[in-house]
Amino acid sequence: MAAPDTIATLGEAALVERIRQRAGGPPQWVHVGIGDDAAVYAPDRNALQVITTDSLVERVHFRADWTAYESVGYKAVAVNLSDLAAMGAEPRGLLLSLALPGAFAAGDFDALIDGVLHAAAESRATLIGGNLSRSPGPVVIDVTATGSVHPRKVLTRAGGRPGDELYVTGALGAAAAGLRLLERAASPAAELENAARECVGRYERPTPRTRCGLIVGRSRGAAAAVDLSDGLAAGVRLLAQASGTGAVVDASRVPVHAGAAKLADALGEDALRLAIAGGEDYELLFAVRPRRRRAFLAAMKRAGGLPVTMIGQLTREPGVWLAGGNDRSPLSEGFNHFA
Amino acid sequence: MAAPDTIATLGEAALVERIRQRAGGPPQWVHVGIGDDAAVYAPDRNALQVITTDSLVERVHFRADWTAYESVGYKAVAVNLSDLAAMGAEPRGLLLSLALPGAFAAGDFDALIDGVLHAAAESRATLIGGNLSRSPGPVVIDVTATGSVHPRKVLTRAGGRPGDELYVTGALGAAAAGLRLLERAASPAAELENAARECVGRYERPTPRTRCGLIVGRSRGAAAAVDLSDGLAAGVRLLAQASGTGAVVDASRVPVHAGAAKLADALGEDALRLAIAGGEDYELLFAVRPRRRRAFLAAMKRAGGLPVTMIGQLTREPGVWLAGGNDRSPLSEGFNHFA
Repeated sequence: MAAPDTIATLGEAALVERIRQRAGGPPQWVHVGIGDDAAVYAPDRNALQVITTDSLVERVHFRADWTAYESVGYKAVAVNLSDLAAMGAEPRGLLLSLALPGAFAAGDFDALIDGVLHAAAESRATLIGGNLSRSPGPVVIDVTATGSVHPRKVLTRAGGRPGDELYVTGALGAAAAGLRLLERAASPAAELENAARECVGRYERPTPRTRCGLIVGRSRGAAAAVDLSDGLAAGVRLLAQASGTGAVVDASRVPVHAGAAKLADALGEDALRLAIAGGEDYELLFAVRPRRRRAFLAAMKRAGGLPVTMIGQLTREPGVWLAGGNDRSPLSEGFNHFA
Repeated sequence: MAAPDTIATLGEAALVERIRQRAGGPPQWVHVGIGDDAAVYAPDRNALQVITTDSLVERVHFRADWTAYESVGYKAVAVNLSDLAAMGAEPRGLLLSLALPGAFAAGDFDALIDGVLHAAAESRATLIGGNLSRSPGPVVIDVTATGSVHPRKVLTRAGGRPGDELYVTGALGAAAAGLRLLERAASPAAELENAARECVGRYERPTPRTRCGLIVGRSRGAAAAVDLSDGLAAGVRLLAQASGTGAVVDASRVPVHAGAAKLADALGEDALRLAIAGGEDYELLFAVRPRRRRAFLAAMKRAGGLPVTMIGQLTREPGVWLAGGNDRSPLSEGFNHFA
């Protein structure tokens, strides 16, 4: 049997053509798409373009022996769409920049592209260009996402004020619990199989809260937002810092993911700690003025009924705290990427 | 003496702050700049946004023992601005995505950022966001550049027709000659020092033809354009392919860089081959309708008098040829990134 094609045997032009074939024809707002020196697209009337870039690095953000390349491609796009969601933007064009070893298999390449296109389609984003490079080391997947948003409906991190209520979407800790399980390379007990599948799924294929960010942004129900890529503690700190406020989070209100709670128990981990510091949940954190609470909750309902939980508030007093009973302690930081 | 700071000891927030400090305040069209989930900027009225991404990978595109990080940062931006120039776009916002080993020195980090900002300033582009990741392997520098262009003044690769004349800016082969010299790790003879400095400089710090692309695009003097990142042969092939034509290049007309010719002689290389297949010159190749020739040449003059040379034409007959005397041969391809 012949050796399978690799990206070295195919060459760049064939790889770009492979992507173009898989991507199909672009929508009308794309004037120049995949394959020219740059992509060209028409912004909406009266809309701002939002743009973000984020990368997944092999052995730092993913391991190819744990996760199929389809999911890696999906996640590379999802984490960028999550940033757009946190700005209240509607996704438009994506750029994909890949640095790949020469021996990277063509089948893995196609799977990666399929994952990229799958995540894009779910949020109605379109791949409009990118770049292919060789890597002498790890696979590096860099995605740039652009989106449009009306100038007065941008959700930044800086719009919060003392007295704003903090709301978080969904439930937290599942991605971190899934990662812990992968790290231990342990098979879960039979009664934990569902929880394990759910948590690993959340880690490998996070759902960007695109519709939620868009509808909340349009409703002007929230004053500020951030996505929880590095965990709740990091998100609260970033939002408070940018808004020039402090914050208090009530430990008893943090929505811990049910499957994560089960799995944490079995792994001897603290589920609340995973929910607060674990990261990679890609839920959204909103700061909401009390007088806009009804508009915010109505928008959340219109966005499809994703659960949302009030977990604390922004404060005039500086510092970011976790309150439990009569006690409080500093809300523990997210991790340092470079340590 | 204390060990110098590394990116691992500083952490992400301090690194982002370092970039923000060096970058200074953004212009008015930037609504949300460095440090939020995504950047937000206002496109021009009646203008398209152009967006491109390109990366430099250590040991593939540069070697840290040859080139200072200030130049690496400069080049990472320049190669993206060159793509915008080839579309006739005016540079606007840049995103910088870095994957760096934990032991990467803080001094090199600052030098890299300074190079990025230097290249940006020269073309009036603004750093508006990005991403920082850890790399377990090589340094990977990914830049996304956005620019604006009027819808009817976009220069794509696809606008050429049989009979169009092919023009190339500047002189070719210097970057390839500079790279050959670095590869041999040889000190040039005294009388070649100037040529060597010039050629290595072209390889390390290419000048994007921003003003030239912009003014030619606005003049509608050219029907198609491509930048010569992978060499003249690759550029002619890409333009002809996208335009659905063939092409003939006259070998005697190819403008070989004078310093490259000297250096090639000393290194036992063929200067014409370096000029045709060498790559990394980042000059522009234009296809010009004969009846628009005067408008094109007038625009080139307004753009600052960068020399431009007619080197051949697009043909109805398919194939891309190099003609010399009474002979012709296939125009040799650029290199395959992945081989």
